[in-house]
Amino acid sequence: MSEQLRVGMVGYAFMGAAHSTAWRTVNRAFDLPLSARMTAVSGRSPEGVAAAAAKLGWDEHTTDWRSLIERDDIDLIDICTPGDTHAEIALAALAAGKHVLCEKPLANSVAEARDMAAAAAQAATSGVLAMCGFNYRRVPAVALMRQLVQEGRIGTIRHVRAQYLQDWIVDPSFPLVWRLRKELAGSGALGDIGAHIIDLTQFVTGQSISTVSALTETFVKQRPLTAESAGLSASAANDGSGLGDVTVDDAALFLARLDGGAVATYEATRFATGRKNALRVELNGSLGSLAFDFERQNELEFYDAALPSAEQGFSRILVTEADHPYIGAWWPPGHGIGYEHTFTHEVRDLIEAIATGQQPTPSFADALQVQLVLDAVSRSAETAQWTAVEPALERV
Amino acid sequence: MSEQLRVGMVGYAFMGAAHSTAWRTVNRAFDLPLSARMTAVSGRSPEGVAAAAAKLGWDEHTTDWRSLIERDDIDLIDICTPGDTHAEIALAALAAGKHVLCEKPLANSVAEARDMAAAAAQAATSGVLAMCGFNYRRVPAVALMRQLVQEGRIGTIRHVRAQYLQDWIVDPSFPLVWRLRKELAGSGALGDIGAHIIDLTQFVTGQSISTVSALTETFVKQRPLTAESAGLSASAANDGSGLGDVTVDDAALFLARLDGGAVATYEATRFATGRKNALRVELNGSLGSLAFDFERQNELEFYDAALPSAEQGFSRILVTEADHPYIGAWWPPGHGIGYEHTFTHEVRDLIEAIATGQQPTPSFADALQVQLVLDAVSRSAETAQWTAVEPALERV
Amino acid sequence: MSEQLRVGMVGYAFMGAAHSTAWRTVNRAFDLPLSARMTAVSGRSPEGVAAAAAKLGWDEHTTDWRSLIERDDIDLIDICTPGDTHAEIALAALAAGKHVLCEKPLANSVAEARDMAAAAAQAATSGVLAMCGFNYRRVPAVALMRQLVQEGRIGTIRHVRAQYLQDWIVDPSFPLVWRLRKELAGSGALGDIGAHIIDLTQFVTGQSISTVSALTETFVKQRPLTAESAGLSASAANDGSGLGDVTVDDAALFLARLDGGAVATYEATRFATGRKNALRVELNGSLGSLAFDFERQNELEFYDAALPSAEQGFSRILVTEADHPYIGAWWPPGHGIGYEHTFTHEVRDLIEAIATGQQPTPSFADALQVQLVLDAVSRSAETAQWTAVEPALERV
Amino acid sequence: MSEQLRVGMVGYAFMGAAHSTAWRTVNRAFDLPLSARMTAVSGRSPEGVAAAAAKLGWDEHTTDWRSLIERDDIDLIDICTPGDTHAEIALAALAAGKHVLCEKPLANSVAEARDMAAAAAQAATSGVLAMCGFNYRRVPAVALMRQLVQEGRIGTIRHVRAQYLQDWIVDPSFPLVWRLRKELAGSGALGDIGAHIIDLTQFVTGQSISTVSALTETFVKQRPLTAESAGLSASAANDGSGLGDVTVDDAALFLARLDGGAVATYEATRFATGRKNALRVELNGSLGSLAFDFERQNELEFYDAALPSAEQGFSRILVTEADHPYIGAWWPPGHGIGYEHTFTHEVRDLIEAIATGQQPTPSFADALQVQLVLDAVSRSAETAQWTAVEPALERV
Repeated sequence: MSEQLRVGMVGYAFMGAAHSTAWRTVNRAFDLPLSARMTAVSGRSPEGVAAAAAKLGWDEHTTDWRSLIERDDIDLIDICTPGDTHAEIALAALAAGKHVLCEKPLANSVAEARDMAAAAAQAATSGVLAMCGFNYRRVPAVALMRQLVQEGRIGTIRHVRAQYLQDWIVDPSFPLVWRLRKELAGSGALGDIGAHIIDLTQFVTGQSISTVSALTETFVKQRPLTAESAGLSASAANDGSGLGDVTVDDAALFLARLDGGAVATYEATRFATGRKNALRVELNGSLGSLAFDFERQNELEFYDAALPSAEQGFSRILVTEADHPYIGAWWPPGHGIGYEHTFTHEVRDLIEAIATGQQPTPSFADALQVQLVLDAVSRSAETAQWTAVEPALERV
Repeated sequence: MSEQLRVGMVGYAFMGAAHSTAWRTVNRAFDLPLSARMTAVSGRSPEGVAAAAAKLGWDEHTTDWRSLIERDDIDLIDICTPGDTHAEIALAALAAGKHVLCEKPLANSVAEARDMAAAAAQAATSGVLAMCGFNYRRVPAVALMRQLVQEGRIGTIRHVRAQYLQDWIVDPSFPLVWRLRKELAGSGALGDIGAHIIDLTQFVTGQSISTVSALTETFVKQRPLTAESAGLSASAANDGSGLGDVTVDDAALFLARLDGGAVATYEATRFATGRKNALRVELNGSLGSLAFDFERQNELEFYDAALPSAEQGFSRILVTEADHPYIGAWWPPGHGIGYEHTFTHEVRDLIEAIATGQQPTPSFADALQVQLVLDAVSRSAETAQWTAVEPALERV
Repeated sequence: MSEQLRVGMVGYAFMGAAHSTAWRTVNRAFDLPLSARMTAVSGRSPEGVAAAAAKLGWDEHTTDWRSLIERDDIDLIDICTPGDTHAEIALAALAAGKHVLCEKPLANSVAEARDMAAAAAQAATSGVLAMCGFNYRRVPAVALMRQLVQEGRIGTIRHVRAQYLQDWIVDPSFPLVWRLRKELAGSGALGDIGAHIIDLTQFVTGQSISTVSALTETFVKQRPLTAESAGLSASAANDGSGLGDVTVDDAALFLARLDGGAVATYEATRFATGRKNALRVELNGSLGSLAFDFERQNELEFYDAALPSAEQGFSRILVTEADHPYIGAWWPPGHGIGYEHTFTHEVRDLIEAIATGQQPTPSFADALQVQLVLDAVSRSAETAQWTAVEPALERV
Repeated sequence: MSEQLRVGMVGYAFMGAAHSTAWRTVNRAFDLPLSARMTAVSGRSPEGVAAAAAKLGWDEHTTDWRSLIERDDIDLIDICTPGDTHAEIALAALAAGKHVLCEKPLANSVAEARDMAAAAAQAATSGVLAMCGFNYRRVPAVALMRQLVQEGRIGTIRHVRAQYLQDWIVDPSFPLVWRLRKELAGSGALGDIGAHIIDLTQFVTGQSISTVSALTETFVKQRPLTAESAGLSASAANDGSGLGDVTVDDAALFLARLDGGAVATYEATRFATGRKNALRVELNGSLGSLAFDFERQNELEFYDAALPSAEQGFSRILVTEADHPYIGAWWPPGHGIGYEHTFTHEVRDLIEAIATGQQPTPSFADALQVQLVLDAVSRSAETAQWTAVEPALERV
């Protein structure tokens, strides 16, 4: 019987549910040196966290996240709260010698992210490990994409074309939820989904974004207050009209140059009517191309210019074979997997890293670098200038 | 806290793993009146079943399936073994007053299936319920397909075009596994995957197949014996060459007429190179069409001939909205689900039926009717004659 | 300046327009040893044929097709009339020493087709050549499909899956045009579009259909008479109700075995709502698969099982490269071609054959063999028996 | 018999061949008030132009384009030469009272384009008409896209996503042809294919680009000289190495704001390996979305957010129905058209405009506006600044 990795999770909403699935499933699917135990979950609402613990399968629950960190029988803190709280929780957990899994984006500001990366680097010297949860790296098709790039199958990358398209706030009567308030979410489409395509393209290409020219737009400037947002936005935005100000971007678009010579377009938006979760990346290289769309997450398109000319074409690889990344744990060919599997793969890799004492990726330093790109994009949009990405700490 | 439904599962291979996921997940995803408990699993190999119980999450394990039936603390027997054992186990379980979930095909012969359907009808009078596991009915896109048909959106159905295409035995060096031996599997592609498209098309159209003309083919007539198959086939097929006879069909094709006036083509094969799990159904009606392919399980194609002429087209519905069948339990739009979710939906519906005392579907009578179609197909292939499907018991 | 090939065309409707485009275009696109001259067109209506000659670009016109055959300054008769007139015109033309291009199906009966094939074989001994117009053989993607099969790229063919799906008579108020009357059209979907997939699959596989089991169906049994059809059907079908009997099949479905060991499904229908001209062929072989759909005529899908396992997938070959069949004459890569190009390719190959004294394909003997398959399908549908295809003349 | 429109064409390469097809075909497909006559073609090479005249079907040929303009029996000058010669020819033709069709881009500089637009405006006062050849406006699917936008079917447009992706110079050994030399081509991917997506998006949205932020890149900086380019580039670039400098962009990317409030990404490249002629436009509006890719030119994707939620999806409209733009002239549904048809549609509209004395579109003023966008993009790429598009003449 394997040793346990005892988890305390902070937050239990969308990300909390996804992470719970991962912790519950990972040892059922993979043979691992450590067995995850869902020790306790914390949340602000006593009723909410009790119900979530029961539904999601946590042994205990609390309204005090600090109590999780103080417990001796918890090895890892899993942070699933909005971005404004990440830094405080992560710093406390690392200081207490707990491993940390922190949802993306790492923080709402570069300053916080720098502190977190520094703390993680320090903690690593004592074998305490931290990882940021860019789950889309663990889509098997994305992992295969990276592998084909690393094997040189598409040669020198010339073009990156990245989009993350959603449409859930196209309707102007959609309310002013926390994700539309800067003080809580940090930014809008940019940090929420733009962060994913920044991380993903850097991951699959092995190149870093060096400079950007951006624009951001808020198409719908005021939205109905909810019970929640009415309170939250009282001083800043609540003028009694029942509407509050949207203080984040609805869409963020930018051009970029990568340090390996590629040029790129990026687009993150919540206003692409009909596109539900279209995280798309296309790479064009000197020897081939690769394309991915999360709406067809079990497929990867590969154009191999080394094949005979008359036979070249974009091939639709169904990434469900046992020799594809992560797939050996699942079902026979053609029996696709779903969204939550990306989290299961994430914690699988994290458990392997912890068990072997290796740094999991993306590290907090990697996530800081994404934060620096987000910051450069924001500044570029404000100043209408090409803006260089600031240097990060040395990445692990 | 809800009352428990205590499950004993027989068999722990592919289907056993899928069902285990379902039992483990169903109360995490859905709010249900009964809480599934994974009480015990049985299997022939002591080591195998012990390892499976640990990996899949069953409280106890045994090599004696009869002991599961004898226990008072088990409410439902879940049968995940090969088809030759279904009848014996199901009959014993029903006789003992256990609810039964039985994998498809219901049995290896019509005679067995008739016995099982009769026993299930009898048991139902005492509130003991039986269901057959045609899991693909619970793909959200398939459920939506049925719903649109029932709402009359495609009018009178003229054409059914059904294929279940796999390719896992194209290589002639693939060994003689149990699925390729008639005494264990009953038939080959026909019963294994043909049964699914028979059930599925009858489910979505609301029509029954009345008469068929079929051919079956075994492309590779001998295959390498495995340790397992060498023993199994000793008398019948093992001539010392290291090869044994394939005694089932590699492919089964048939034409059919349905009792609502539609004409149909069916094709089930394990030799469709490159098609991994292409369960495809297309319906053409007087007012529209619907098309589905499990390799893109989160999508349904719908052609609505009632739209203005210049705007008609097959629309790709991403079946991931909260108002689509089963999806409310899962993730936001565009965050697709995977193969195992079909089993979770299946046991969700089964739990609802048991809790409310209603007959779950497909019933054993429904599954008998599929068996009768399989039988008609087999006889048609043997006699090279159009063959009528025999009448079933009255379906529940 | 090249020598001329002087053409007389009979019929000027849909096929006449398509053939006119081909004759007008072929020497503009290809460098050929003979230059097509559009000498004269004939048709029954004096006004109609005059207008067509002007619109389509023929030098002269006549209402007497025999006069075309009698002229010394015409080298080739191009037959674009309904099937009931093919035999008489073709036999007269061949007897007069004219080359013949005859639209498909070759005839409305096997007897006629046998006479035509015999006459063509006789004429060939004097260098007079005949070809049947199965234009879809000349889609570049189809020609590439055949080439890949011939090169052994998909190995031994196991499965043929052929469909020709249209929907132009789904509406029951669509009138009783000549294509819906047996005495003119011979059959319905079967001869009109089923003939194409019979020819095409035999062409690309190099195998012949040997035996079939079929069903045909007429979903809408009576339709409004038109001015034209009211007259035509006076005795047989016009009961004064304004409706006349549909005397051909709306859909024809059949299973088949091919002489190379493949098994096949065929389906031809005019009731596949939303499918406009979906001529589809899929081949599954021991080493790969190929798939084509005319609604995406510039694409061919190819699955190559010889590639590394993790990279296998159906590749979408855009068949617009200069090294693809016929494409060198047209536009740069990615600039697709259209329906009429298939006819231009057809007459290009015919001109080459005539100039070099070689038999063009498909010959009348090839077309007779298709007729024999159609006949077997019809007889099978009538008798509800598996039916062998009768032997043809020796094929050229 | 209709009156003639006598055409003199300058240039006979790629565009000359496409235009010849259009002039030869237009009166065969459409009923028009004027009949096109292919009177004469001019080109620099005596042998080349003679051969082209014979192959493409022009009555006469000359090496002196001025002679075409001087002839009384020519009504329209069709300019198919590289961009550096457009202004001189067009100005001379307009001055001589000839109608003009000029290939895109209108000119190689804004100054030339301004002169041409002014001359066209002046000529129009005498009934002499000028049109620029942005042929992709006449793809039926694009025309339908515009129509749906104009009917308000997608509401307020938020996003424009435009790409024109080719890959014909990915290989660094591809030679230094004229399109890679600034003095002849003006620019690279930007003017050649970027111009098309600028025009197309403005056409379909009804909005104009107001400001841009751009980058351009030349991935392969030197290429082998050809016999032609060796001479052309003698002084500037030929250093005896057999290589010459590429003096245009391989790729141009830009962000834009449109005057109707939409934000946009544009990308034109010749380095998108595997993308052959992927002219793609997607529009996301408040009520729906539209998407087009020229590699599937007979299709338009339409997402209608006004449909019931559970039925919404991107529908693939096969734009081949008689009630779709331009299609009535061609084939039955599902029988797609090809690249050259866009030119036939273009001259069809031009002939209609000339016959009725109406300004054809795009006018030279429209084309000047595209030139001003190209100029803003170039300046933005040079200065790395957001750059406003200069005001054009008043557009017709």
